[in-house]
Amino acid sequence: MSEERRVETEVKVRYAETDAQGVVYHGSYVVWFEVGRTEYCEAAGYPYPRMEAEGVQIVVVDLSARFRRPARYGDVVRVATRLAAIRSRGCTFAYRVFLPDGGLAVEGETVHVFVDAATGRTIAAPEPIRSALAAFAAG
Amino acid sequence: MSEERRVETEVKVRYAETDAQGVVYHGSYVVWFEVGRTEYCEAAGYPYPRMEAEGVQIVVVDLSARFRRPARYGDVVRVATRLAAIRSRGCTFAYRVFLPDGGLAVEGETVHVFVDAATGRTIAAPEPIRSALAAFAAG
Amino acid sequence: MSEERRVETEVKVRYAETDAQGVVYHGSYVVWFEVGRTEYCEAAGYPYPRMEAEGVQIVVVDLSARFRRPARYGDVVRVATRLAAIRSRGCTFAYRVFLPDGGLAVEGETVHVFVDAATGRTIAAPEPIRSALAAFAAG
Amino acid sequence: MSEERRVETEVKVRYAETDAQGVVYHGSYVVWFEVGRTEYCEAAGYPYPRMEAEGVQIVVVDLSARFRRPARYGDVVRVATRLAAIRSRGCTFAYRVFLPDGGLAVEGETVHVFVDAATGRTIAAPEPIRSALAAFAAG
Repeated sequence: MSEERRVETEVKVRYAETDAQGVVYHGSYVVWFEVGRTEYCEAAGYPYPRMEAEGVQIVVVDLSARFRRPARYGDVVRVATRLAAIRSRGCTFAYRVFLPDGGLAVEGETVHVFVDAATGRTIAAPEPIRSALAAFAAG
Repeated sequence: MSEERRVETEVKVRYAETDAQGVVYHGSYVVWFEVGRTEYCEAAGYPYPRMEAEGVQIVVVDLSARFRRPARYGDVVRVATRLAAIRSRGCTFAYRVFLPDGGLAVEGETVHVFVDAATGRTIAAPEPIRSALAAFAAG
Repeated sequence: MSEERRVETEVKVRYAETDAQGVVYHGSYVVWFEVGRTEYCEAAGYPYPRMEAEGVQIVVVDLSARFRRPARYGDVVRVATRLAAIRSRGCTFAYRVFLPDGGLAVEGETVHVFVDAATGRTIAAPEPIRSALAAFAAG
Repeated sequence: MSEERRVETEVKVRYAETDAQGVVYHGSYVVWFEVGRTEYCEAAGYPYPRMEAEGVQIVVVDLSARFRRPARYGDVVRVATRLAAIRSRGCTFAYRVFLPDGGLAVEGETVHVFVDAATGRTIAAPEPIRSALAAFAAG
């Protein structure tokens, strides 16, 4: 069994990302998932801004997250992102956010469809994007 | 079979909540879930700031959302919130966000545990909070 | 001397808008200025989405704010917005954010230019927009 | 005439930080100022979380910004931060945000007071903090 490749990104917690409970606001992790996804596409050789320049958007259709332990202001957390699935019309990314002590803060997934930016319609993943992501994920 | 009571809240989309795809950023809906939850607790007679004043926090441990159709800047969306479950140590809220034309934008759920703000430990839901929420939900 | 007309909007503080200092994050007030500005244009009969539909954007070129007393989660604050100036190529809005006890939380100003959305160039304020805002401001 | 020392930080623009005008939301730069300030204090040997652990908060009392050219999704911008002034009861940071092409995106300043976290009262800057910042700024 092969493991899908992971891309790791460091994120330093901003004050703006905390809330009055003294820890990171749960919605902030959703933004970090996006940071992880952006880094993943870039590492795979298909930066998301390039997809957009080619008229393709990746739209989030499903999101889930389990919150284990909170991060705090100033923490440098590690976001590990992998491509959990790629299909003709969409893909799934999975994320794990780790605290400075190595403990798991949050894990989650996002499901995406490919959309033609001009028409707003879902499309099959353009072949170059699909093969770049699939090849990279396979390692 | 009774339906749980819903609390409806209007939210007017802010420019800050949109993104470069021209529509609402998916993470913004997570914030609106929080707005719906706040209004629900208030309608149930137990405003969240009162819980906090009594040393109790409601912490999000699980989040899920399905994105159907995007809202846009200036839209007044309707967030319908219901208490899907209340247990001794936690509760689940369910949300549906409706567009101005009545169509469904997003639906989702959050699962919460009750936490003692002083110790940070999960606790059984204090009886007054639990019964206020349960009684209100039952209609 | 006439006073410019003010438009008042209520904003209920969201958890997402607070930070680990236990109060509203200073950047959140900037978003509320935007909320006040949106309501002002709407009250003046020229909603901002209509300007955009007509190909005109109002771009922020200058921002200032003085923070007096912090708002907290659950507070319903009042944002009072007025058009401090309107010129051929731009306009200035001024804001005061009031706490539930009537005290001043924040005051600030934003300076804007009108931009042709198609070309990205600054333009003279289209006459219908300029006169709608000026007439409304005069009361 | 000596120049105050600058601390430079790179920030990669997130989708969450853009808006429906297709560029970075103006309020996002305020968050980047905070990122620059955090890095500055850390570089000066007095990380902000350490100040907080010692019961001292730095509270923003004044903010100003001039927006020159917009950053876009995916841009890696450079935030250059310097300590423009340090006084007994407060300090001023100045920021310049540069685009990937070297052009100036935004410049701004924030004025801060030191606050005793326990009482919420403004205090004189504790001597170790003041001298650490002043010595670092002097180069």
